[in-house]
Amino acid sequence: MQNEVIKAIMERRSIRAFAEKQISNPELDVIINAGLHAPSAMNEQNWHFTVVQNKELLDEINEKAKMYGTGTGNDYIEKLMTNPKLHIFYNAPTVIIASELDDGYAATVNSSAAIQNMLLAAHSLGIGSCWIGLSRYAYNSELKDEFIKKLNLPENFTPTYSIALGYPKGNSPEIKPRKEGTVNFVR
Amino acid sequence: MQNEVIKAIMERRSIRAFAEKQISNPELDVIINAGLHAPSAMNEQNWHFTVVQNKELLDEINEKAKMYGTGTGNDYIEKLMTNPKLHIFYNAPTVIIASELDDGYAATVNSSAAIQNMLLAAHSLGIGSCWIGLSRYAYNSELKDEFIKKLNLPENFTPTYSIALGYPKGNSPEIKPRKEGTVNFVR
Repeated sequence: MQNEVIKAIMERRSIRAFAEKQISNPELDVIINAGLHAPSAMNEQNWHFTVVQNKELLDEINEKAKMYGTGTGNDYIEKLMTNPKLHIFYNAPTVIIASELDDGYAATVNSSAAIQNMLLAAHSLGIGSCWIGLSRYAYNSELKDEFIKKLNLPENFTPTYSIALGYPKGNSPEIKPRKEGTVNFVR
Repeated sequence: MQNEVIKAIMERRSIRAFAEKQISNPELDVIINAGLHAPSAMNEQNWHFTVVQNKELLDEINEKAKMYGTGTGNDYIEKLMTNPKLHIFYNAPTVIIASELDDGYAATVNSSAAIQNMLLAAHSLGIGSCWIGLSRYAYNSELKDEFIKKLNLPENFTPTYSIALGYPKGNSPEIKPRKEGTVNFVR
């Protein structure tokens, strides 16, 4: 029981090394449109997406995320954030920043479904992607209002996650093992 | 720029009328496996899915959700929940109940990505689906512990959303318009 949709779902991996070449505008349109066609609770569509292709702004988010993300007391995050080689967007040429309506019903759920659509659509076009949470240290910092202004967000939206997009450099990573015991049945 | 993945994303609709015939076990396996192959923050996979094909339990969740979901002061929910014709699972023969690890990092995001994978996988197999939030009125009620026991969940997991699955009865609904102004660019 195999088809192209199942194949894409099973084969997509998070990509953390990107070619310099920018993705095309038609590809970007398809990816965004895929996100906007996710289902949302009560059809609220209470999401917003900002396509950033401005290296200066991406570098600034990286720098501030690493600054505010150190000293949080989480060893895993500490090790990541103090690694001078880490760019939280892995130098992806395009980053889509997802924002949620403040206090919007099921806003996290809705934007997550949209993001997963975008990741799969990108994969189907040969474009690599990584869903990035580390940028929250910039978005949630005392610079929050400044970033909201720089991203030119509509009123009452707050940035949450980022999606790095670009042509993959190198091979796709191996799949990590799936956890056991995450499914049960009541029949 | 069209392919089977994009097509599935664009054409999938929420289905709210199901044939009686049960979906096959191989189909169910593919759908679940698609969910388990979603990305998760720091590969936590902090999700749990319970496949319920027990009509008695589904009817009970429906009944309790409608009971605890009335009188909440939300007119939209009130109108839905007091409609005697509504079964919150639309009589779907299979319901997958998603649960999240309590206080698990990004648990809502992770399980939402997994659910979206399952909806797309189901669609690709000709199986209709609806992502259901109304069941939360049962899961979050004073009967929470009782439902957790009936669902035989692992420790520290709480049910959140439900996915109705079955062969669609009737035509696929029309797409609802997408909101304007949900995307902007910083270049």
